[in-house]
Amino acid sequence: MTKKVFDRILFGGDYNPNQWPKEVWQEDMRIFKDANINSATVNVFSWAKIQPSETEYYFDELDEIIEMLTKENYDIVLATSTAALPAWMFKKYPEVARTDFEGRHHKFGHRHNACPNSLVYQKYAEKLARKLAERYGANPRVTCWHINNEYGGECFCENCEKAFRVWVKDRYKTIEALNKAWNLEFWGHTIYEWDEIVLPNALGEAIDYDNTAFAGISIDYRRFNSDGMLNNFKMERDAIRRHDQTTPVTTNLMGTYKNLDYFKWAKEMDIVSWDNYPSYNTPWSYVALTHDLMRSLKKAPFMLMEQTPSQQNWQPYNSLKKPGQMRAQSYQTIAHGADTIQYFQLRRSVGACEKFHGAVIEHVGTEDTRVFRETAQLGEELASFGDSLLGAANHSRVAIMFDWENYWALEYTSGPNKDLKYVDQIHQYYRYFYDKNIAVDFVPADADLSGYSILVAPVLYMVKEGMKEAIEAFVNAGGTFITTFMSGIVGESDNVHLGGYPGPLRELAGVWVEEIDALAPEQTNQIQFVTGEEGTSRLLCDIIHPETAEVIANYTSNFYANTPAVTKNSFGKGTVYYIGTELDTSSLDLCLEQALETTDVQPTLEETTPLEVVLRETEEDAFYFVMNFHAETHPLPKTFVGTTDLLTGEVLSEKTVLHMYDTLVIKA
Amino acid sequence: MTKKVFDRILFGGDYNPNQWPKEVWQEDMRIFKDANINSATVNVFSWAKIQPSETEYYFDELDEIIEMLTKENYDIVLATSTAALPAWMFKKYPEVARTDFEGRHHKFGHRHNACPNSLVYQKYAEKLARKLAERYGANPRVTCWHINNEYGGECFCENCEKAFRVWVKDRYKTIEALNKAWNLEFWGHTIYEWDEIVLPNALGEAIDYDNTAFAGISIDYRRFNSDGMLNNFKMERDAIRRHDQTTPVTTNLMGTYKNLDYFKWAKEMDIVSWDNYPSYNTPWSYVALTHDLMRSLKKAPFMLMEQTPSQQNWQPYNSLKKPGQMRAQSYQTIAHGADTIQYFQLRRSVGACEKFHGAVIEHVGTEDTRVFRETAQLGEELASFGDSLLGAANHSRVAIMFDWENYWALEYTSGPNKDLKYVDQIHQYYRYFYDKNIAVDFVPADADLSGYSILVAPVLYMVKEGMKEAIEAFVNAGGTFITTFMSGIVGESDNVHLGGYPGPLRELAGVWVEEIDALAPEQTNQIQFVTGEEGTSRLLCDIIHPETAEVIANYTSNFYANTPAVTKNSFGKGTVYYIGTELDTSSLDLCLEQALETTDVQPTLEETTPLEVVLRETEEDAFYFVMNFHAETHPLPKTFVGTTDLLTGEVLSEKTVLHMYDTLVIKA
Amino acid sequence: MTKKVFDRILFGGDYNPNQWPKEVWQEDMRIFKDANINSATVNVFSWAKIQPSETEYYFDELDEIIEMLTKENYDIVLATSTAALPAWMFKKYPEVARTDFEGRHHKFGHRHNACPNSLVYQKYAEKLARKLAERYGANPRVTCWHINNEYGGECFCENCEKAFRVWVKDRYKTIEALNKAWNLEFWGHTIYEWDEIVLPNALGEAIDYDNTAFAGISIDYRRFNSDGMLNNFKMERDAIRRHDQTTPVTTNLMGTYKNLDYFKWAKEMDIVSWDNYPSYNTPWSYVALTHDLMRSLKKAPFMLMEQTPSQQNWQPYNSLKKPGQMRAQSYQTIAHGADTIQYFQLRRSVGACEKFHGAVIEHVGTEDTRVFRETAQLGEELASFGDSLLGAANHSRVAIMFDWENYWALEYTSGPNKDLKYVDQIHQYYRYFYDKNIAVDFVPADADLSGYSILVAPVLYMVKEGMKEAIEAFVNAGGTFITTFMSGIVGESDNVHLGGYPGPLRELAGVWVEEIDALAPEQTNQIQFVTGEEGTSRLLCDIIHPETAEVIANYTSNFYANTPAVTKNSFGKGTVYYIGTELDTSSLDLCLEQALETTDVQPTLEETTPLEVVLRETEEDAFYFVMNFHAETHPLPKTFVGTTDLLTGEVLSEKTVLHMYDTLVIKA
Repeated sequence: MTKKVFDRILFGGDYNPNQWPKEVWQEDMRIFKDANINSATVNVFSWAKIQPSETEYYFDELDEIIEMLTKENYDIVLATSTAALPAWMFKKYPEVARTDFEGRHHKFGHRHNACPNSLVYQKYAEKLARKLAERYGANPRVTCWHINNEYGGECFCENCEKAFRVWVKDRYKTIEALNKAWNLEFWGHTIYEWDEIVLPNALGEAIDYDNTAFAGISIDYRRFNSDGMLNNFKMERDAIRRHDQTTPVTTNLMGTYKNLDYFKWAKEMDIVSWDNYPSYNTPWSYVALTHDLMRSLKKAPFMLMEQTPSQQNWQPYNSLKKPGQMRAQSYQTIAHGADTIQYFQLRRSVGACEKFHGAVIEHVGTEDTRVFRETAQLGEELASFGDSLLGAANHSRVAIMFDWENYWALEYTSGPNKDLKYVDQIHQYYRYFYDKNIAVDFVPADADLSGYSILVAPVLYMVKEGMKEAIEAFVNAGGTFITTFMSGIVGESDNVHLGGYPGPLRELAGVWVEEIDALAPEQTNQIQFVTGEEGTSRLLCDIIHPETAEVIANYTSNFYANTPAVTKNSFGKGTVYYIGTELDTSSLDLCLEQALETTDVQPTLEETTPLEVVLRETEEDAFYFVMNFHAETHPLPKTFVGTTDLLTGEVLSEKTVLHMYDTLVIKA
Repeated sequence: MTKKVFDRILFGGDYNPNQWPKEVWQEDMRIFKDANINSATVNVFSWAKIQPSETEYYFDELDEIIEMLTKENYDIVLATSTAALPAWMFKKYPEVARTDFEGRHHKFGHRHNACPNSLVYQKYAEKLARKLAERYGANPRVTCWHINNEYGGECFCENCEKAFRVWVKDRYKTIEALNKAWNLEFWGHTIYEWDEIVLPNALGEAIDYDNTAFAGISIDYRRFNSDGMLNNFKMERDAIRRHDQTTPVTTNLMGTYKNLDYFKWAKEMDIVSWDNYPSYNTPWSYVALTHDLMRSLKKAPFMLMEQTPSQQNWQPYNSLKKPGQMRAQSYQTIAHGADTIQYFQLRRSVGACEKFHGAVIEHVGTEDTRVFRETAQLGEELASFGDSLLGAANHSRVAIMFDWENYWALEYTSGPNKDLKYVDQIHQYYRYFYDKNIAVDFVPADADLSGYSILVAPVLYMVKEGMKEAIEAFVNAGGTFITTFMSGIVGESDNVHLGGYPGPLRELAGVWVEEIDALAPEQTNQIQFVTGEEGTSRLLCDIIHPETAEVIANYTSNFYANTPAVTKNSFGKGTVYYIGTELDTSSLDLCLEQALETTDVQPTLEETTPLEVVLRETEEDAFYFVMNFHAETHPLPKTFVGTTDLLTGEVLSEKTVLHMYDTLVIKA
Repeated sequence: MTKKVFDRILFGGDYNPNQWPKEVWQEDMRIFKDANINSATVNVFSWAKIQPSETEYYFDELDEIIEMLTKENYDIVLATSTAALPAWMFKKYPEVARTDFEGRHHKFGHRHNACPNSLVYQKYAEKLARKLAERYGANPRVTCWHINNEYGGECFCENCEKAFRVWVKDRYKTIEALNKAWNLEFWGHTIYEWDEIVLPNALGEAIDYDNTAFAGISIDYRRFNSDGMLNNFKMERDAIRRHDQTTPVTTNLMGTYKNLDYFKWAKEMDIVSWDNYPSYNTPWSYVALTHDLMRSLKKAPFMLMEQTPSQQNWQPYNSLKKPGQMRAQSYQTIAHGADTIQYFQLRRSVGACEKFHGAVIEHVGTEDTRVFRETAQLGEELASFGDSLLGAANHSRVAIMFDWENYWALEYTSGPNKDLKYVDQIHQYYRYFYDKNIAVDFVPADADLSGYSILVAPVLYMVKEGMKEAIEAFVNAGGTFITTFMSGIVGESDNVHLGGYPGPLRELAGVWVEEIDALAPEQTNQIQFVTGEEGTSRLLCDIIHPETAEVIANYTSNFYANTPAVTKNSFGKGTVYYIGTELDTSSLDLCLEQALETTDVQPTLEETTPLEVVLRETEEDAFYFVMNFHAETHPLPKTFVGTTDLLTGEVLSEKTVLHMYDTLVIKA
């Protein structure tokens, strides 16, 4: 079960010696050694340097960098540089630029600026990836390929429009099928020829960036856009594979980033990597959620490709990380499945928009900084693990469904309540498990559910072909399924499952939802559990008719007082909970507690603690990560009294306490 | 006086069987019958279906629909389908699309998407209307023609620019007159040739959508745009009239919608129809205002073309209508002059942006829903009226002026206070009459005032040619005229009436307004009536010199303390009140109460009640509508003790109370 | 030292008789005389009138205006009319219009609408200025040339793009130097040919209007844009000088307007003029700041080219000026260095967007208004000064640095805190001196500092070549230098001064700033002075290592509690204060008080008073201006007991009090 991709924990990050004079390079090597840095991500944005014109390639500088890092025995994460096009390409081929949502064709600027359907871009990106693989693929210190960088954004140019028509035709085959899928009879939008289709931006069906007149075309555009960028990724990957069949290939993802269907992408990646940039006020449960999501993409350890040693620059308020915070954040990352800790970046930029982004070596240029010392301490600790942790698994009996198509469809929906947001709903449910130290996997819409005891699918708005059967099979076999309001409403093209909500989930849940009330932010309803506890509800309130379900809680206000807000249904050997409204935290906890009672789901630690406790296991070992993310100091859980903290070698006692950001790693 | 357009109260709504398989049609007919539905609006968005290409027309499906409805004895409201262009037309003639305020030429998408000055659009819209009239005009069950749908929006394309120059030349005849009207000497904008004129969008004189450097051109653009769309309406109407000289023609309006001068439109319509979509927090007085405005357009009963049975989708928060709310809202609509109750829509959409908009038949597809039951109850009640109510008049001695050109001009004004909004001011005055159950008509700027005892004209900013004389004649003859700050300021081209505010109203009001102070939202002034009552004022404060007027209330704060805030002037046989600032509700009530004392204006019901009470009268009968729109329960007014509620047959007693949304209809 | 540009205090303002019929002109002359108006600014927006087509010029009307004013012995401020292009020029040469930040090429509309790099515009603007000078330059009553009007805005058209490349090439000479300056190796933006450069608007490197991916190019674009408009100014000035070598030339500036580097502009202007438009809630200290800044541009008296007699129109809330407020504001203006008081405008517009902007003659058209009477009173008072005040100097030992390039660079910076605003920071420091009645000069980055005792340079983010040496020399010679967080960070191209913050100021300040924490608006830190006083800090918090500095105050919260927040360093004969965070007002006062103690800086008045007291001195006389800008009444400072108020002739006693807006002028 242990999946080791690397020989050691990669510890390093983005490194751009090309932006610095040569004398700095040797100084870097010296300083990095003091921090146990063993890895560098290079060549992320060097296309213009490597290919100064359409016909010339220049590798001398990269040769020197690779040679230096090789000599120093670094694990080199070699990027392909295709995330920002050279200026000459815009001048010569303006079509390589993107056309934005407003319909404006851009000129040279920024990064992530290639039209994904530009043949010129594709031609030269493929060629560049191939040349890099040819030149460096055989170097054993090239440990990982890093294609492009943070794929994202969109293009609405003419080339994309033409490509979209091809994609649509390929998906629907006939005009009739398309008209039906997009429900184009509505408002008389029926088309008769494929080239009547136009992209759904501000000049087409879009209302604004987050709203659309026809969700069908807008969701399909997102599918097309995600696929188009994925094709670019695959094109580069395949180019690399012509010269290097073994080195793992990745690209760095961005957590819950909306535009790309990461579960689909992960299938094409050898290892997932991602960039973790919480804000000063992001809940730690949300950070944990994104780690679990990234690990779940391949159900395997991942790379932390980027985090800042201390400060960011692009947030509105870029607070410093407090002493110990970066260390705790790094261990949380590892606890949830990371096999690498990499920073953006190793030396802080002298200019341009990221110069206020923290780095291992700050502008002062020395190792005499708090940030460096904290980095070095972590480096030393990580080195002490050797390869013992690598590939260790996170086991979970709880699955939460995370489906990018649902994400898109739910948020495109016009009505009933504009404040309904997909990730926010997912997080409300994840938060419960996080607080209880119960391990969670995220699963896609087409997941194999056999390994799980509980499946939680909040706002499972879009139920696609086969999902009903899969979930019914899961529950039939004894699984517990928890779903909510705004579930089972539409199929894959955003057309409603007629016959009563929650459509394909109706028999499972044993309820019919007749109406969905929407509450404004200043409004709430009251609820009461049949066991007596009271709570509040908001946002959306299903009006539920139990068919085979029993009532768990009722509304006690509004005209639907005394009708169910939460129900429970027996189905086959399993149980289905239907939570018909957004509950306050305590009420949601009550529901989920009850749902868990009849399952085999156990917290990582039996005893109750406000500390975060996570377990990773290899075939040989099991590691507990114990972290305090609260301002208050908390005692060591009794379970661990007498064990040894691997990080300090300290034997833990009844008197051991964890202050904020204190972290322990304990071998089970 | 009774104007009957229909033979029965039309009860039905938008119906799109074309979006559904045939088996659903018969099910619809069965279910609708259970709800006493007798009318359907069809063919609203079917252009693409009816005309699949430039040369083909296809009526088979519509034939079947009309045939089915005819067989079932429906009153068919037949739409012309021109509110959304077919996709092929955009592809073949991109000029049919609109250019938006930002100067972006759109592609295919949305509805209401035709450039009103596109000859291609006009050619095919006219032809379609003609063909429909030719084919269905003789069908006696086609009870009403519904042209286009919710006309609105704007276009700023080159064709519109050229058309605007023609319109402007036609209005002003000479360049000199134009330069003067638009005051183009200001900022040296003098033009010398007509084609130097450019449309006032973001690339021209507009500052942003609601602001402009030259109100003259921007107001004229709105006149031109309203006229242009009205010409399209007339074009279709005339096309219909070639084959059908008798069936009434309408298009559905949108209450206080800003862009179209509905008083001008109404002259071309046989009957007014409109769509009533209050938000969850719209005051009921505002809903009543819009009904009265729509009725006043032709001073005749109107059609409620659309309302939702329960839920909307396009508001931020789409609450359900509570039990009884839709019924009460429907009777309020009838009370204020409607002869039809039509829903959008009869069967809920399976997809696209309105799928969360409520319908008589919901997604569950059955009649077993609260929404359906409430609809059916209403249907039964309405059927019981037969034709007794049809054409009944609402009589009023109070006129409030509502002038779209004022609306535009006032809100384009740069200074003195950006929070000044036309409809908000109108509503503050209307609210008083609503609370007192005093019937109100709205009148246009060129109204015949002879039937009224009181004319209220809040913020009568633009006083056009002839208005001074008309109002003076009205007051001379004994009328009471009430006007406010920001009145009499400009003429029809937004140039100031020089010589002292309120310009042409100065002699009438007997005051000279020397200065207009603007208060920020956090600021207020204090006022005191000469009779002792105290109040507050805000927004704008006129500094008034009474000339012939007497003082009703003075400011008691700011540097203009002890100068008048409200005055009263005798003029001829009549009286003029000038209210120089925005007053708190109680203070405004005091003013209006005093104004009413010397008139013959009576409330519909002598006794005071928080219930809404409205009277409609035919030549034979008089119907009182009594509705409770308050959360609290209120007793039946004593006047009605012993009468019978037509809706339930119940004899009303001293013990009768009305809970929220309870409604009675009582024959006088 | 006294610099008299005029023979009397100019009292008048913008005058547009061309917008009025001739009969009004004579009425104007009569009324203006009653107000002692002696000056008029004419021909500001008359290009379209003067040049009705490409080939015709028409001066008859202007001749008449000049003749009338000459006859009445006015000081004529003659504008060149080039601030708004004629409509025909847009029609014939669309390139004269600007392309905006969004990339939209505009059509005819507004003013300030010329592309600064349009050769067509330049050709005709130069020709117009030349013709005006030829025709009117010899008229002795033409007292001042007023070029264009409120230069501002930007253009991003193709012509500007080409001109920018030339400007850039001229600045950097080689591509290598350019790549280095803009740090284009970052994100691989390296260019190889000059025409790969594109303008940094929304289609290029800009993120939004206030943010950019590459500050280097964006700052250079602002330099280029400021220079380009300045070139247009110089072009017109030089055209005038061909026919008129002596009459002073100005253009009206706009205080802290961001886009133009006014210190650079002032070098080309004979006298500075500016337009003062505070909002209803602008602090008076801020108004004083802008006056001092405008005076400091040339370190000489300036013209108040525009203020409103009472009301504005383009603010959200356009309050009236209260009785006495305009007078007090005018004397404040004179106190800080104005030799003219000019209004916008003399007669209120009949139409277009400024019709609600106040004027000396209001819409009523008579002199019987409060506004007129207050104007007339002021006119009489000013006339009584004769030429005694003209050219009087404001002496100051305190310099505050105000550098437009810093302004741009600081606000383009991505991180650490988006709420950091340049002028806001400057104002926090200025406010201290204002409250203490200590005179302040503003100085540019390349100032001669020899005349000052204190140099305050808040957020001196950009330290350019030579500044370190200049400031060190200043301190070495005994000066006191006060600087703050976010100082010494970058050089002129926004590349960081490596080696530890505050870079070139590190030795001066005697501190090394290791980190910069950013606080969100809801966060604060606590501080404590070594002398015991406590305070709060916010926004940004430097973490400081004193090197040679001593500690003045420490943080007492956060993880950097007990590290310095404020330090003081001895350097040469002088002292340097480093204020590492944004302090509350009292704490900042404590710091500055301490800094002043060891200098020769004295308040204008020894005694403490909440009144504003300003001193202007000629070689013969000294004038104290004493003003009360507080709602509360305050006693006359004892110093002035027994003196005479020049404005009223009143002898001032111990009982004299100043109510709000009361103003005294006292000869020392």
